[in-house]
Amino acid sequence: MARLVPVSDPADPRLADYTSLRDVNLRKSLEAEHGLFIAEGEKVIRRAVGAGYPPRSLLMAERWAAPLADLLAGVDAPVYVAPDATVEAVAGFPVHRGALASLHRLPLPPVADVIAGARRLLVLEDLVDHANVGAIFRCAAALGVDAVVLAPRCADPLYRRAIKVSMGAVFAVPHARMPRWTDGLAGLRAAGFTLLALTPDQAAVPLDKAPMGDRVALLLGSEGDGLTSRWLAEADEPVCIPMSADALANGVDSLNVVAAAAIACHALTRS
Amino acid sequence: MARLVPVSDPADPRLADYTSLRDVNLRKSLEAEHGLFIAEGEKVIRRAVGAGYPPRSLLMAERWAAPLADLLAGVDAPVYVAPDATVEAVAGFPVHRGALASLHRLPLPPVADVIAGARRLLVLEDLVDHANVGAIFRCAAALGVDAVVLAPRCADPLYRRAIKVSMGAVFAVPHARMPRWTDGLAGLRAAGFTLLALTPDQAAVPLDKAPMGDRVALLLGSEGDGLTSRWLAEADEPVCIPMSADALANGVDSLNVVAAAAIACHALTRS
Repeated sequence: MARLVPVSDPADPRLADYTSLRDVNLRKSLEAEHGLFIAEGEKVIRRAVGAGYPPRSLLMAERWAAPLADLLAGVDAPVYVAPDATVEAVAGFPVHRGALASLHRLPLPPVADVIAGARRLLVLEDLVDHANVGAIFRCAAALGVDAVVLAPRCADPLYRRAIKVSMGAVFAVPHARMPRWTDGLAGLRAAGFTLLALTPDQAAVPLDKAPMGDRVALLLGSEGDGLTSRWLAEADEPVCIPMSADALANGVDSLNVVAAAAIACHALTRS
Repeated sequence: MARLVPVSDPADPRLADYTSLRDVNLRKSLEAEHGLFIAEGEKVIRRAVGAGYPPRSLLMAERWAAPLADLLAGVDAPVYVAPDATVEAVAGFPVHRGALASLHRLPLPPVADVIAGARRLLVLEDLVDHANVGAIFRCAAALGVDAVVLAPRCADPLYRRAIKVSMGAVFAVPHARMPRWTDGLAGLRAAGFTLLALTPDQAAVPLDKAPMGDRVALLLGSEGDGLTSRWLAEADEPVCIPMSADALANGVDSLNVVAAAAIACHALTRS
């Protein structure tokens, strides 16, 4: 049973996990150093706990304790109850969704484990934007992609904003991170995956005519530049989403990465 | 030829068009009252001017005047040149993309005009989020949707953030706003459009098995609640994007509206 602990001083060291939640650089080092991540809002906290991440603590205004009572009953961690102003002063913004939880990260499984039973994979190379990573996980979960493999530099799916945008789907889709960018694709190919590289290049094979064999991994690149030339070259087939001729003439020559991922996940999982 | 006018006082009344760009409520009334909209960044400003919107003025740090020289040569409006700190003080945030333009809105064409030659339409009911509206316009443009029709309460595609997220696609896709919500769909049906209502309801016809006749209008609802029951009932056919059984079991029961719109635009324009 969780202990409800009243707090009011924003400088209370017990609230250090929740410091400056919008300061991306600070959070990256703080979370890495302590092996923690932050979940925001009742629904997402329930999913994180349900997925087996052990809470370090929770922080909320008192009115959130009642709706979360059933969850708190099973939690063995302090629940800090604070005035809204205290939560805002610590987090650095008004936390409209009320409750925050700091949870222990779990070791990511090896790539081999998450791809073992998978037919349809997404492989994210160097995505920078946490909201995009979260949105892509939501697409992957909703449409039935079996697993996501991250390149070493891809943004963290357990970053608060990624979790929030994913609606907790980051807890539902098995994922792993390649130890090395250079030979990461070789491991997937050795496991029998056909590697399709999504590119805006309209000379590539249209996605809906692409070879969808028994095991397919779709590679997605970063927001600005797309896949690196190395990964493009290493893939079995570049594939594209056909753009309208009018759009190309008007200079609208690409989709954002989330829209492209949505279309790709739909195509992948319907074949 | 544009006149370069040095300014430095954030309270200068000539900069009033650029006040508090992130204050949505203030901007809505200010822009409606003066019939203006704001374009941000060189690329988007070029597209807005290229699409025929007359500039009221531009505001930028001096270093942006040279890259925009060719555009400014053809502009008959004052170009206010200000220190970064002045631009930030007026706009309310650091304007990384450098240049801002205030442009006159043009009267929207009647719905009948934008649908006259169209085969594939999107109809946006009550979307609230400007970024979503912008992202959907980008999908529509890139994938070749012929026109977008907005319900009376749908968020404004010429709001700064919608324009920015659309990468200027709001200028490339013909769009119009229904004068009335109640009989807006009747007009589309009378013009021969089959009305498909996109819904998360998995009992609906899967999108890729939906009847795609000569003229199809796809209806998209608001972020939270989707289409109103009235529009759902009025449509010819509810259609859905099939979700994975695992996702439904895990409570991931929907896509965000942009991901859904991307998949829908792709399906619409490939048939």
